[in-house]
Amino acid sequence: MHLSHGRASGKRSEQRTATFTGTVHMDPVLDAGSVTINTVIFTPGARTYWHRHLGGQLLAVTAGRGVVATRDGEAQVVTSGDVVWAEPGEEHWHGACGDSLLTHMAVSHGTTEWGGEVAPSDYTAAQP
Amino acid sequence: MHLSHGRASGKRSEQRTATFTGTVHMDPVLDAGSVTINTVIFTPGARTYWHRHLGGQLLAVTAGRGVVATRDGEAQVVTSGDVVWAEPGEEHWHGACGDSLLTHMAVSHGTTEWGGEVAPSDYTAAQP
Repeated sequence: MHLSHGRASGKRSEQRTATFTGTVHMDPVLDAGSVTINTVIFTPGARTYWHRHLGGQLLAVTAGRGVVATRDGEAQVVTSGDVVWAEPGEEHWHGACGDSLLTHMAVSHGTTEWGGEVAPSDYTAAQP
Repeated sequence: MHLSHGRASGKRSEQRTATFTGTVHMDPVLDAGSVTINTVIFTPGARTYWHRHLGGQLLAVTAGRGVVATRDGEAQVVTSGDVVWAEPGEEHWHGACGDSLLTHMAVSHGTTEWGGEVAPSDYTAAQP
């Protein structure tokens, strides 16, 4: 089996809390071992903790408006239709803007290493 | 720059002929070096040639109905919302069903190696 097939079930959405700030729900789409895909919805103000993916991560935005930001202060504002590729090992966070929801497909390659919570000042500084 | 940002321009769509059968149009979304993303539309009956991606390929279907098939005869029928991960080096083709268009986002990792055209008999055998 060299093709791994997935789709959101619409029946397994779970609220994420341990490594997220605010209200975030996630629906698994694919688990192919080295590659996992989730649909993620962030309510306004919600975001991930700092983290890195050892094989990189693709975010494909399907609704709302959000931010993807790195440790060195780079911040990308994203809306529906935008894609962002975070290179292997690049420490970053992503989430909704303060005044908007965000929905994206997250394609994660390799192990995910989680860091700490994004400080409110860092979150605010990355807002458009 | 460790975040690579892209979106379909809607102004650079090109018709692909060299390694495709039938009428296929492609709109580039992201070129991040080792990772490239294109939105691809296949008209009914259209499909790629055989090919492999040395880092793997993710297909995320956004409209229509199509097929992803491998050399060993595995064939996945896909519709909107389906994702398929073709492992690094897995030789495969993808395209529309004979009676349906197909639109997908193709995320290609590493070099693409192209083979020959998919024989009509192989295409027909993979139809649902």
